Amino acid sequence: MLIITLIAPRISQEEDAHGKPSSSFHGNGQPDPDLWSTPSSTSMDHLEPRRPKLMFNDTLHNADYYMQEAKKLKHKADALQDKFGKAVNYADGALSFIECGNAMERDPLEAKSPYTMYSETVELIRYAMRLKNFTSHSATVAEKKLAVLCYRCLSLLYLRMFKLKKDHAMKYSRSLMEYFKNSAKSSQAPSPWGANGKSAGTPSPMSLSPSPVSSVSSSSGPLVSSSSSASSSSGSVAIPQRIHHMAASHVNITNNILRSYEHWDTADKLSRESQAEFFQDLDSVMDPLTQQSSMTELVRYVRQGLHWLRIEAHLL
Amino acid sequence: MLIITLIAPRISQEEDAHGKPSSSFHGNGQPDPDLWSTPSSTSMDHLEPRRPKLMFNDTLHNADYYMQEAKKLKHKADALQDKFGKAVNYADGALSFIECGNAMERDPLEAKSPYTMYSETVELIRYAMRLKNFTSHSATVAEKKLAVLCYRCLSLLYLRMFKLKKDHAMKYSRSLMEYFKNSAKSSQAPSPWGANGKSAGTPSPMSLSPSPVSSVSSSSGPLVSSSSSASSSSGSVAIPQRIHHMAASHVNITNNILRSYEHWDTADKLSRESQAEFFQDLDSVMDPLTQQSSMTELVRYVRQGLHWLRIEAHLL
Repeated sequence: MLIITLIAPRISQEEDAHGKPSSSFHGNGQPDPDLWSTPSSTSMDHLEPRRPKLMFNDTLHNADYYMQEAKKLKHKADALQDKFGKAVNYADGALSFIECGNAMERDPLEAKSPYTMYSETVELIRYAMRLKNFTSHSATVAEKKLAVLCYRCLSLLYLRMFKLKKDHAMKYSRSLMEYFKNSAKSSQAPSPWGANGKSAGTPSPMSLSPSPVSSVSSSSGPLVSSSSSASSSSGSVAIPQRIHHMAASHVNITNNILRSYEHWDTADKLSRESQAEFFQDLDSVMDPLTQQSSMTELVRYVRQGLHWLRIEAHLL
Repeated sequence: MLIITLIAPRISQEEDAHGKPSSSFHGNGQPDPDLWSTPSSTSMDHLEPRRPKLMFNDTLHNADYYMQEAKKLKHKADALQDKFGKAVNYADGALSFIECGNAMERDPLEAKSPYTMYSETVELIRYAMRLKNFTSHSATVAEKKLAVLCYRCLSLLYLRMFKLKKDHAMKYSRSLMEYFKNSAKSSQAPSPWGANGKSAGTPSPMSLSPSPVSSVSSSSGPLVSSSSSASSSSGSVAIPQRIHHMAASHVNITNNILRSYEHWDTADKLSRESQAEFFQDLDSVMDPLTQQSSMTELVRYVRQGLHWLRIEAHLL
């Protein structure tokens, strides 16, 4: 239902919703959205420092408040033609959806799932990043800066999603380790010790024989390579339905942490490549983002960065 | 082979190896091991500040150097009777094994596997922690401090092991997600949307229908719970040998990151409980440990902590 209402740009309604003096700021530190759609440059960046710091309001709102903020920003983006401005506003809308998910986490009575909110927000950011190839050689400096901010969001969203379900993953992991350990014993799989050339002859810190966990872990790579070359690999294995479902869930949850590291590394690489100075400024004005940063710290950091991007691209 | 040689305490050889003035420090910042086995208190802690900072030497040695250091410390621990002193020295030995693994990572010509070195070091630390129940109510304050230091080591070792293999895990994850997505389509599994009560009616940030990934992810919990109650869960599923091996490897690699978070949380909880002041001092003298800390930062932080534990327990 809401999906449909979100598709149609509803500019008129928004104009009503934003009748504020152009100098006003939202509590969440956003400059008034009305200004962003103004295509031509304003003299704003001559009246204040090149990279002014936004004022952030510590007032906590409920999920609905942030949902309404997010919808406004998304409608604004839907209505824009310029792909960069569109992507910037989708990214800003995503920040409000993140605040919405964070409010859902705070509220024990909240019926809706923060996990679903975060996972849908990931899709929104990915959609914004598909508007143009923001990481290609032809991408502008501004587009690459936006890509870095988006990758940071993706990384910390995936990390948060992982943390929300890691207790499930841990439970599944124990059961699956146990299952695969036993199935490996019963199968004709080559010994991890024989298979793992690298581990052969490595001095062992232990006076004891290695535990199953560490020995299986250290052979995880070889186990696969040897199997793929083994004739048995063409056959199939019967596993309990329960294990099959558990493995599917485990892969889905752990995929989040893998994506998180992947996007974090991409953001690092991309920011070092060409945008070092911009992000050094951002790190000095805000706390640098880390994989321990809270959702609130993420939102403020990226919102500050988006504000500077708007100034530099004369979107304000 | 070496496992056997490590079992036998070789005190005499060590006495030779450590004929240094009692005030001397190793390059790696360890007080002379000969002193640690002295059971009675020395006047050292009256001659210097209560919690003196160790001097750390930045000289990089090769893997063999740290291996020899580690063996000396391990032999020392093997020879001790007092379980706390024994555990402290095993932990210190583990730090040298970590330095050894780190040196293996630095040396492109190093034939041995840092992953195996780290996983065996995990086993050594777990062995040391099994000497006594360091986390029980009956544990002394010193024992709990040691447990916190050991959990930090375990957490960052598991994290490093995960990072060493995460590219494999990412590759397996993509293939497994694809496989389970298709198998879910073909199976009679209940719709994630129907199954996931929490996601029902959640406003979607997207104008587009959710991607398979996010929709499957958000239903990972329910997918399992519904299956376990489903009659089909009693049956079994035939999966390709290749997928079976891949899933086993994927579980083994991702188990590392799950353990890493588990032990990190345990260390946080345990240090807050009773040892806050000790670790506040440690954080102020050293850089506080984070999940971004390098192996070198870990080793120095924990070695400094072990030094203070020795002083407080009169093991110096």
